[in-house]
Amino acid sequence: MTPTTRQECAALDAADPLAPMREQFVLPEGVIYLDGNSLGALPRTAPARVADLVEREWGQGLVRSWNDAGWWDKPRTLGAAIAPLVGAGTDEVVVGDGTSANLFKTVVAALRMSERDVVLGEAGNFPTDLYVTEGAAGLTGATQRRVDPDGPELAAELARGDVAVLLLSHVDYRTGVLRDMAGTTRLAHEHGALVVWDLCHSAGAVPVDLSGSGADFAVGCTYKYLNAGPGAPAFLYAARRHHARADQPLSGWHGHARPFDFAPGYEPAPGVSRFLSGSQPLVADAALEASLEVWSGADLEQVRTKSLALTDLFLSRAAEAGLGSLTPSEHDRRGSQVSLVEPEEGAGYAIVQALIARGVIGDFRAPDVMRFGFTPLYLSYTEVFDAGQALVEVVREGEWRQERFRARSQVT
Amino acid sequence: MTPTTRQECAALDAADPLAPMREQFVLPEGVIYLDGNSLGALPRTAPARVADLVEREWGQGLVRSWNDAGWWDKPRTLGAAIAPLVGAGTDEVVVGDGTSANLFKTVVAALRMSERDVVLGEAGNFPTDLYVTEGAAGLTGATQRRVDPDGPELAAELARGDVAVLLLSHVDYRTGVLRDMAGTTRLAHEHGALVVWDLCHSAGAVPVDLSGSGADFAVGCTYKYLNAGPGAPAFLYAARRHHARADQPLSGWHGHARPFDFAPGYEPAPGVSRFLSGSQPLVADAALEASLEVWSGADLEQVRTKSLALTDLFLSRAAEAGLGSLTPSEHDRRGSQVSLVEPEEGAGYAIVQALIARGVIGDFRAPDVMRFGFTPLYLSYTEVFDAGQALVEVVREGEWRQERFRARSQVT
Repeated sequence: MTPTTRQECAALDAADPLAPMREQFVLPEGVIYLDGNSLGALPRTAPARVADLVEREWGQGLVRSWNDAGWWDKPRTLGAAIAPLVGAGTDEVVVGDGTSANLFKTVVAALRMSERDVVLGEAGNFPTDLYVTEGAAGLTGATQRRVDPDGPELAAELARGDVAVLLLSHVDYRTGVLRDMAGTTRLAHEHGALVVWDLCHSAGAVPVDLSGSGADFAVGCTYKYLNAGPGAPAFLYAARRHHARADQPLSGWHGHARPFDFAPGYEPAPGVSRFLSGSQPLVADAALEASLEVWSGADLEQVRTKSLALTDLFLSRAAEAGLGSLTPSEHDRRGSQVSLVEPEEGAGYAIVQALIARGVIGDFRAPDVMRFGFTPLYLSYTEVFDAGQALVEVVREGEWRQERFRARSQVT
Repeated sequence: MTPTTRQECAALDAADPLAPMREQFVLPEGVIYLDGNSLGALPRTAPARVADLVEREWGQGLVRSWNDAGWWDKPRTLGAAIAPLVGAGTDEVVVGDGTSANLFKTVVAALRMSERDVVLGEAGNFPTDLYVTEGAAGLTGATQRRVDPDGPELAAELARGDVAVLLLSHVDYRTGVLRDMAGTTRLAHEHGALVVWDLCHSAGAVPVDLSGSGADFAVGCTYKYLNAGPGAPAFLYAARRHHARADQPLSGWHGHARPFDFAPGYEPAPGVSRFLSGSQPLVADAALEASLEVWSGADLEQVRTKSLALTDLFLSRAAEAGLGSLTPSEHDRRGSQVSLVEPEEGAGYAIVQALIARGVIGDFRAPDVMRFGFTPLYLSYTEVFDAGQALVEVVREGEWRQERFRARSQVT
């Protein structure tokens, strides 16, 4: 039962098995942070871990730390720590580069494994997925088509029999819709297509089972629900069965089979390391390491249960405020995000600004979406109740109509 | 006159205008660090700058810092701070991704600007340059040829009239040979080729004049002579005259003309921003910011003068030790590195290990090169004299023949 009073929320907090995790994060006073789907909060141990890397490993160890501090293997050791969060084998994930570069590598690698030349994407995907596909298609001569992956056209497009690669986001960044990874992957495979999953809005937010779903490739960022810091390095998954054949085009020296031979020709490493390119930013990796340490103590079932309860709660308050929702009411189709709309021109942006002025941080995505992310590791039921109360007041009392909330200046 | 006694070196230190810069770096006790060409030393202000980004900008500012702390513009503001170090306009450089990805972007962009399809590289270039060229050629259908850029074949290869892009390292990572950027660029242009310069071993080490040389594109890392920390983000230069036409394939959303429109189609930003892909690791950028602040107070002429004096000094001690040098004696052909060889099998590796045991850190590059980098901002004449003395002793007394120095275990 979704709670309807603050008192009920306080009781849920008292019984919440994840409540102690909150102590592992730093959050500013007076803020209810509903934007962990854009940039996750700071893990309490991250400053010390980063400082240790900077002052001891770099400052004192200098170049010796490439061996002594395990820097050379970070892409693999961090990948192995992410693996259980996405249902992958520890030898199937590497950390490095950004989401855009990793999308490029996986889409091109998948295209090269197929006789076909169509990349099927989703019409409303996050822009970088669309743009990178455009870039990869431009280079390889592939054709890109786009489809609404939540409608019947997806099956029809796949049935045309010319799709080499299907690229989908597991959770839609605008609406928070969660896709059926196993069912969609099976359908694609039945029609002879490989699948690349973008986990940017699902890793750390919902259960992800890449192995169980038979996924081919996946990429994801670490700075949203995984809390690794602004622009932190991304991860890349390649199913073990594809390692020997996968041929990615950003063939830098870290992906070489014997990088310290300094051989004149490229020979890809045997495993997932072949997806690496060059040296990675170790200072940023240190924050990711701290965050993954927190995640190693999280029960993912508990995370999902609480995520659904928090989003149920906020959806009920949004309905009370009279706002429309793009986020499904069905649990099995919902990520860890609530996306709301208010049809009046400019309302969405202004409502988000008015909430921020009250210390409730969400974000706005053009043209009209108010996005609120729910991170079970550091949000309480009471906070979400209070955020819902703020939403009801801002909307019902027309607070957002004030001129100061309507001026557009932000970039993000 | 190259000094021959420690006393003369102490006198040079006392008169050295760059000596106060040493205080701006942290170096471990008992170490003479001759590997700044691989990983530069820690700037004294970097820990505090990184901690401020982590604890205040991320921890307290959270997602708001994308605007309030200037995160969104870091690729451009950091690029503008690097520009004067490489003779570029402040609107011609961006920071982001790694060297390998940036090589890929510039080589493909240059290929697309040409009717021709040959990428001419250098036979002994750093492996990632060779491997990325191989990857780019594989995708675009271009042909790669390689040449010794320090011999007469370079002119002959260009004269064949089929070269679209010439990719050269400004300073050779193995030998420390400095190439004539202006003359080579002119020659390439006369033969209808564009030039991509790899500045990994020259930025911060030798004068670089991209604009004055007429260079087309350049890339470089920031973690060697620029002291930005292990794996720190790379930079990319594109001459202003090419901005409107340059079409790079890693077309992520940060390179879009209006990224926050979330438009379905890619439209490149008008300036050098079109070379950006996705979000960058801000925690790592903070260390770069601290380092560039130090560089903003450095006189590049003084850096070059001292670099040549230090390498002269070390070369004279190496000759005394009876070692061969791959590094030219002519000043105008020398970077800020000395590369030595000792023909006996396994000697190079063991000599470097024996020096490390004495606190003199250089590195070894297969098959037989001992590399020593000289960073005028934090090395003194006395230190280089002492390092040379250690070299003389290790070699003359056969100290390196001890079994403990001969075992190969390091990765870097």
